[in-house]
Amino acid sequence: MNPERIPVYVGVDGGGTKTRAVVASGKGKVLLDLTDEGANVNRFGWKQATTVLSRIFEHIRGSLGDAVEFRGVFLGLSGMGREADRSRMATWLECAWPGVPTRVDHDALVALAAARGGEATGIVLIAGTGSIAFAYDEAGRAYRAGGWGYLLGDEGSGFALGRRALVRVVQSYDGRGAPTVLTDRVLEHFELDGIEALVRFVYRTPDILQRIPEVAPLVLTLAREGDAVAQAIVAEAVQALIDLVDAVQKQAFFSLERVSVVLAGGLMYLDSPLRMQVQAALADRYEVYPDVVPPVVGAVLLARRLAGDEDGNEAGSAFLDTLRHDIAVESPGYK
Amino acid sequence: MNPERIPVYVGVDGGGTKTRAVVASGKGKVLLDLTDEGANVNRFGWKQATTVLSRIFEHIRGSLGDAVEFRGVFLGLSGMGREADRSRMATWLECAWPGVPTRVDHDALVALAAARGGEATGIVLIAGTGSIAFAYDEAGRAYRAGGWGYLLGDEGSGFALGRRALVRVVQSYDGRGAPTVLTDRVLEHFELDGIEALVRFVYRTPDILQRIPEVAPLVLTLAREGDAVAQAIVAEAVQALIDLVDAVQKQAFFSLERVSVVLAGGLMYLDSPLRMQVQAALADRYEVYPDVVPPVVGAVLLARRLAGDEDGNEAGSAFLDTLRHDIAVESPGYK
Repeated sequence: MNPERIPVYVGVDGGGTKTRAVVASGKGKVLLDLTDEGANVNRFGWKQATTVLSRIFEHIRGSLGDAVEFRGVFLGLSGMGREADRSRMATWLECAWPGVPTRVDHDALVALAAARGGEATGIVLIAGTGSIAFAYDEAGRAYRAGGWGYLLGDEGSGFALGRRALVRVVQSYDGRGAPTVLTDRVLEHFELDGIEALVRFVYRTPDILQRIPEVAPLVLTLAREGDAVAQAIVAEAVQALIDLVDAVQKQAFFSLERVSVVLAGGLMYLDSPLRMQVQAALADRYEVYPDVVPPVVGAVLLARRLAGDEDGNEAGSAFLDTLRHDIAVESPGYK
Repeated sequence: MNPERIPVYVGVDGGGTKTRAVVASGKGKVLLDLTDEGANVNRFGWKQATTVLSRIFEHIRGSLGDAVEFRGVFLGLSGMGREADRSRMATWLECAWPGVPTRVDHDALVALAAARGGEATGIVLIAGTGSIAFAYDEAGRAYRAGGWGYLLGDEGSGFALGRRALVRVVQSYDGRGAPTVLTDRVLEHFELDGIEALVRFVYRTPDILQRIPEVAPLVLTLAREGDAVAQAIVAEAVQALIDLVDAVQKQAFFSLERVSVVLAGGLMYLDSPLRMQVQAALADRYEVYPDVVPPVVGAVLLARRLAGDEDGNEAGSAFLDTLRHDIAVESPGYK
């Protein structure tokens, strides 16, 4: 380490809608906190994703210049499910940061590290528009279950909750299911005047796969208000999500007694009935962590580990305390 | 009735892939048996559907000329779920057969009449690419359950069986489900070299919704061979199909003790494990009829009823016996 320049770590959390980058000093002080557009290569393509990342990196180098020593860059990026994509991004990242240790991994890993204060072993269960569980073992190997998309998987996701609600609405209409307040709420939400209109809407709306997850919040609200059909849909989702966790547990940690599980994604907010039931169901066999620390914090912690600068528990928790103190829940943005 | 000309009845069964028309004499003798292209207006549009029907009708009139008296034309047509479509087709049909009593209804009604020897009261359960149940009460009113398409319904259909099989294959792969021979058979069927290739295939094949039902016959075969996962998928489909029947029974015949149910559609062939289990499950509460008589026979019987020519049980069964004797299981076609 060059004693004349401040050591810094660059953590990046690149998602489907936005990318957040934080640069922290060796003491955990936040020097920069930037938000830019999404950088998911599946969603935006390689050119746009690398353009966004380049812009962020140029801004960081331009702002901090020669006063700092870049000790590590960790990029957690959604859509990095395939090894071929990770290798390609790793090569690009090395080229963007010559001489600096860099690493790219799935954004689930940064969510895990964020919730666990830098610890990168355990399970991340993500329930948002889609659903997936990842396990990272002691050797850093990743294992997955779910996340196979709307036709093959995504059980317990916002899409699954929404679709199940629509199915229960038509079943209630044709006499196969109990009446449910969902019918009125769904028709109201999409501004439709009946079931036949709903069916036409579903099969004639080009972006219907993006619209169906809009129904998930209605299901969670009605479940909390006591609608039996909504509660049954949530219970089914809870079981599906627990199955995902158990599956990766068996793959990665079959010999371990208690493993950490981080709950992440848009359906796992703090008072979500889905999150509360999943947490309650997992609590007797797992250590469950809610996802309250911004994932970018995990990226910074992993960048620091990448640099080999973890120096004992005391300095480590001072770093983490300062970082957590400095970081805002929402980044103010830049440009 | 003009005594100098032979009275004839025209029955048409118009489906998604082909249209069959039979002209029978007043004694039940088959004078013409024609097969042409499909005439489903949802699938082919009104212009093509009415072109096919016009061609058939011209051929019938050209062949039989003035020697016969057309006493009734009954058209059973798939895709006629909406009243607006039935009215439009009824108007076209009247215009095509001036002075002749005509009627159009869903093809489920002709399947019911075919299996029940002209009786048009009861339930038809159709399990093909999609699934739906119709009930026709004593007053001819129709009731339905299911048939809401691949996103909202079609439980127990070929699509549902196929999709469920693919879901179980990926669940088996990621550790959520038991191993199943389905994995090898599905990969073999689509000529794919692994699960990742299967996932890419599912999301990159433009006509995937038409390809998924291809998996249903594999499920039925493996269920018969004893694969536990395939058997569980079939059991789930059986329950879904029974729910459809019970739903329309409640809508149409809540006061009746025993109602007739006709099993129809591509998955309901005679030794299908799906058909056998559905039949066994329904047998204690319903009179179950397999779908062994070509539906076009039902259309002829309904055309005769339309003419008001049902003349007592004896002549009625002589008509039916002759018609059944004359009709081929497969029509030889024309043109």
